[in-house]
Amino acid sequence: MDFADRLVEAQQQKRSVLVLGVDPQLDTPTSPGIPVKRTLADFCCEIIEACADFVVAVKPQLAFFEARGLDGMAAFAKVVRFARSRGLITIADAKRGDIGSTSAAYAEAFLGGGDFACDAVTVNPYLGSDAMAPFVARVRSGRGLFVLVKTSNPSSGEFQDLDVCGRPLWEAVADRVRGWGSDFIGGCGLSSVAAVVGATYPAQAARARALMPNTIVLAPGFGAQGASAADAVAAARGDGLGVIVNASRSLMYAVRMRAEQSMAEAAAQAARAMRDELNQALAARHW
Amino acid sequence: MDFADRLVEAQQQKRSVLVLGVDPQLDTPTSPGIPVKRTLADFCCEIIEACADFVVAVKPQLAFFEARGLDGMAAFAKVVRFARSRGLITIADAKRGDIGSTSAAYAEAFLGGGDFACDAVTVNPYLGSDAMAPFVARVRSGRGLFVLVKTSNPSSGEFQDLDVCGRPLWEAVADRVRGWGSDFIGGCGLSSVAAVVGATYPAQAARARALMPNTIVLAPGFGAQGASAADAVAAARGDGLGVIVNASRSLMYAVRMRAEQSMAEAAAQAARAMRDELNQALAARHW
Repeated sequence: MDFADRLVEAQQQKRSVLVLGVDPQLDTPTSPGIPVKRTLADFCCEIIEACADFVVAVKPQLAFFEARGLDGMAAFAKVVRFARSRGLITIADAKRGDIGSTSAAYAEAFLGGGDFACDAVTVNPYLGSDAMAPFVARVRSGRGLFVLVKTSNPSSGEFQDLDVCGRPLWEAVADRVRGWGSDFIGGCGLSSVAAVVGATYPAQAARARALMPNTIVLAPGFGAQGASAADAVAAARGDGLGVIVNASRSLMYAVRMRAEQSMAEAAAQAARAMRDELNQALAARHW
Repeated sequence: MDFADRLVEAQQQKRSVLVLGVDPQLDTPTSPGIPVKRTLADFCCEIIEACADFVVAVKPQLAFFEARGLDGMAAFAKVVRFARSRGLITIADAKRGDIGSTSAAYAEAFLGGGDFACDAVTVNPYLGSDAMAPFVARVRSGRGLFVLVKTSNPSSGEFQDLDVCGRPLWEAVADRVRGWGSDFIGGCGLSSVAAVVGATYPAQAARARALMPNTIVLAPGFGAQGASAADAVAAARGDGLGVIVNASRSLMYAVRMRAEQSMAEAAAQAARAMRDELNQALAARHW
């Protein structure tokens, strides 16, 4: 089944556009409220289990697993297996991209059938089309990709906003993302070649929607990075589709703000509240 | 000791600018001349051992290890340990880059003290300064980084050559790389914040030298990707310093071209020949 169609089906079934970013920070063991004796994988899986009913997908961030070496990578594999066993769509947040033969190996790593394989992967477009092609080729097998277009971080404009023939660089990237995805538009009307546009830049998100009418936008930055629910859904289409919203730290470490609850209860309640808040923001946009 | 100073010292001691790219292709087990019963780590370590006297550094490519899952990552850790035990400088070819807190985790993974730690790492600049800062911070501890500026692949110009205020985007990136590295110029006169400029684009490499006078340039693309030795050293300074040249497949699989030799003999002879060819190209440039 087409990745975009699977994602839209899950979104409609769960009535949620929320994505759980599985970002186990390096200071985890000493965080208040996080039981110190849990293994990394158990911690992540417990949060996934708690949030499963409220999120459309999970997006583990490779960096936090790689930083823990071989044990961390074993935990990553376990986390992905667990999420899949719970029927959740998995997005490897890897931001890979290299020359063609190397990108093919990354595509095998994250969209193949091995230990780290997910349903989709995030990719960095700086090297251009031939670096993207091996990932795009996997779309035919039901996989998805999310190309960085306009990122959520404070300095994202340093290069992405540079003026290229009267418009910012990221718009040139958006044009190419639309092109790469044009052959892969599913029954839902959206492509399995998706984009990342930070929720912290809502004006650009609205513009991204205009430039990429059939592109799913993954919006990171909701929660800990400061974007509001209305900002986060700024790229949604009129029909409410086309955007999914990531939250990581505000779910993984919800217990810090809800000290009277268990870690799992706090994550579940935070996920439910964020899901509802995003749905309200989407409903408010209907015209 | 400063990374740039270590690299220059190794270059002068070994009289070599050649870097061994450890890129075990996914079809390795069935390649003619490659013994099928060797493990991935043993294959890579045997090539490293064979080339050790002729190369200034080794640059394992993460993609080819990640594509093999947990076994691949265990092999990566073993390969890095082995290279270090042989006194070789290690460059993790990871092309990472993410929002600040995530880049900090990647910096820990590849420039920290864990299973995957190397002396330097390649990074992707698309997210701007705050994504680079956690890597740059590690330079104070003797680590190095190589920022993608102009990559070696055919479509690198798609975004990197876009006109930004009358010059290509990659030149704007080069300016920032010079800035990021300006506080970290070692006794050798070169910075530990280095750049990647493809040997396949020699005119741009010469221009990169002018834009970044104190920046070491890692030039991939020599050998299998088609760049000549003269192209590969186009970014060298007048004193012969400031460029290191990567070759991967033409060393790892040299036995394919030298069927009468063992795998290790073929790699060693190819490395010696490439080292000499690069030194001759450097000597021919002296003015």
